[in-house]
Amino acid sequence: MKLIPDDLRKEIDLRIERLLSLMSDSGLDAMLIASNSNIYYTTGRFFRGFVYIMASGKVFWFVIKPQVYEEDDNIVYIRKPENIPSILDAWNMNMPVSIGFENDSLSYNEVVRLSKIFPNSKIMDASPVMRRARMVKTEWEIARMKEDGIHQAEVYRRVSKLYREDMTDIEFQIEIERVLRREGSLGFIRTAGNLMDINLGSVIAGDNADIPGPYDFTMGGTGADPSLPVGANGMIMKRGETVMVDMNGSFNGYQTDMTRVWKLGEIPDLAYKAHDCSIEILHKLEKEIVPGMAVSEIYEIAVEMVKKNSLENYFMGHQSQAAFIGHGVGIELNEQPVIMKKSKDLVLENMTLAIEPKFVIPHVGAVGIENTYRVIEKGLENLTVFNEEIQSL
Amino acid sequence: MKLIPDDLRKEIDLRIERLLSLMSDSGLDAMLIASNSNIYYTTGRFFRGFVYIMASGKVFWFVIKPQVYEEDDNIVYIRKPENIPSILDAWNMNMPVSIGFENDSLSYNEVVRLSKIFPNSKIMDASPVMRRARMVKTEWEIARMKEDGIHQAEVYRRVSKLYREDMTDIEFQIEIERVLRREGSLGFIRTAGNLMDINLGSVIAGDNADIPGPYDFTMGGTGADPSLPVGANGMIMKRGETVMVDMNGSFNGYQTDMTRVWKLGEIPDLAYKAHDCSIEILHKLEKEIVPGMAVSEIYEIAVEMVKKNSLENYFMGHQSQAAFIGHGVGIELNEQPVIMKKSKDLVLENMTLAIEPKFVIPHVGAVGIENTYRVIEKGLENLTVFNEEIQSL
Repeated sequence: MKLIPDDLRKEIDLRIERLLSLMSDSGLDAMLIASNSNIYYTTGRFFRGFVYIMASGKVFWFVIKPQVYEEDDNIVYIRKPENIPSILDAWNMNMPVSIGFENDSLSYNEVVRLSKIFPNSKIMDASPVMRRARMVKTEWEIARMKEDGIHQAEVYRRVSKLYREDMTDIEFQIEIERVLRREGSLGFIRTAGNLMDINLGSVIAGDNADIPGPYDFTMGGTGADPSLPVGANGMIMKRGETVMVDMNGSFNGYQTDMTRVWKLGEIPDLAYKAHDCSIEILHKLEKEIVPGMAVSEIYEIAVEMVKKNSLENYFMGHQSQAAFIGHGVGIELNEQPVIMKKSKDLVLENMTLAIEPKFVIPHVGAVGIENTYRVIEKGLENLTVFNEEIQSL
Repeated sequence: MKLIPDDLRKEIDLRIERLLSLMSDSGLDAMLIASNSNIYYTTGRFFRGFVYIMASGKVFWFVIKPQVYEEDDNIVYIRKPENIPSILDAWNMNMPVSIGFENDSLSYNEVVRLSKIFPNSKIMDASPVMRRARMVKTEWEIARMKEDGIHQAEVYRRVSKLYREDMTDIEFQIEIERVLRREGSLGFIRTAGNLMDINLGSVIAGDNADIPGPYDFTMGGTGADPSLPVGANGMIMKRGETVMVDMNGSFNGYQTDMTRVWKLGEIPDLAYKAHDCSIEILHKLEKEIVPGMAVSEIYEIAVEMVKKNSLENYFMGHQSQAAFIGHGVGIELNEQPVIMKKSKDLVLENMTLAIEPKFVIPHVGAVGIENTYRVIEKGLENLTVFNEEIQSL
């Protein structure tokens, strides 16, 4: 088996080129990449081992397992990272003047271990380079995400039919999970860092939406057990409540993030008003976001519209309010940039942004939607096209 | 809401006591715990923040979110870890002479950030202390795992009925997932480190069992997509093949790990012979493992029985063979000890071990079983009691 399939060769070259340019800006002579997501980004595969990227443009794969790829000039099997220097030496390669590790995703002990392998190199942080490269998607990546969005919308189209009278939120979620999986969801949400434990997503009904949680999600919920305090809590969904569905969109190594709202019986005008405000915010942003503007401005446009509608007490939570209204998404659910007031990032063409202006209405539940967008030359392209209104169960 | 529910108070005290004793052995004056699993272990809850454990026995919770617990003498809300020193100072607490962080589970950048908060303290690694404490379970923890084992066996009892002619392995897995979730599975496998991406487990049929993968699972499989290269691959399950089911056992914050094998039509004698050998290994270990013996001896007993049956070419894989036959399990799926030849650990009473002597028979599939055991005074107590024979689909 070839490590990089032929159809991915050009794509990987493009990504490496982008990384080399960012390495040059950062004064990095080499990077040794070891995290799953970044190995996937730089090779199109998951393996255990290391991708060694030199400023000269040379790239080597040091593979620990599985040992199933054809060896070639760029692929070497190793038992442990300590084998790397003698291999470089045998190839007459100099050790790098400076080398970057993924200090944000590898453990402290892993980075210390790797640093010892390069005792005379200046040790730097490769995380910002990897983050900035992945923040802007290639056409190939966006094609994967479009595919995700189509699958995810197809599942959401079937959500109403999965509801049965007197169902708990968890029972409802389980039926959505099954349809997702049958549609091709891999059944796994890949996240960065350790602040996002979750199963296949979040179904939040009624007042459960108003329970703040420990994780970096926009919505909380008590969850089914204190060991996974997020989302559905096992209560029967009742008339007069909304049910917010924010379920998995990962079908192919990339993800889209999408939220829609259903209702049981009738809900108060305030809930409709807030939901409409969410849709208006997104429609305004779809037209007005342009490459070059500050990410923080997206947040401010949203907040301004919320204030104009006097909905600030319900925005991004009621008891506790999240400080962001969206985030980058791709290989991982939580990529850069984070759309918040204190963001220092600029909007760039081909960023993929999940934007989720949501509201929590006490005794009713959560309303508002989330779409995943690609930033285009003028405005946003929606990758998660589906009815945005509150629908009935 | 109380941070520690009353019924957990004694349990948490017991765990802290155990940690204090290990801290004393390691010369740790304090630990600042920040990882999800260890916050859960030391408080019975998940929150974002820190648990500060002093050798004196004092324990403080610095909570970032959610801010929903009753404040008391031991709970303080903070915005960021840099707030901690001034709080300790206000309480007339000295800064610790030495402090341990979880260097195996926190990122390099996180540990560096925390270290700067304690500029005059000796920085140490708290990971070994946490690992050793959690390696031996309390009665309360074992009760949770027994509950898991009962739920998991109840799901396995229904596996045969979920099969339909011409089903793919993924379709079969999806139906098992649904039954698991309806039985109360939280739908999430908590693992340590970044070597175990997985959805709700592994269903491997036929030759897919012989495909080595990048992760630290005993079995491989190509998976449904290169972005999650493990387990079921979407092929229709065929007559003459085995189907190994190693699916999620997490219902309450703890986990049991359990594998059983089903067959389609008839399979060769070699497959039965290997399966019987797996059962014999476990039954022998159930009687012979005693506290005090070397963990490596478990591995050697198994290998010896495999050799006696001339099955070594199929043991723990055929194309590629895993170097371990089991592992600790609890809050995380992959806890200590790892049952392998080079283990330096000793077996201790109330360790919980998932033992999985498995075989891959070419053109047939994987056989062998896995049970989760508690080490008792003499032998093992099985927490995953269920028919161990190969069953028909």
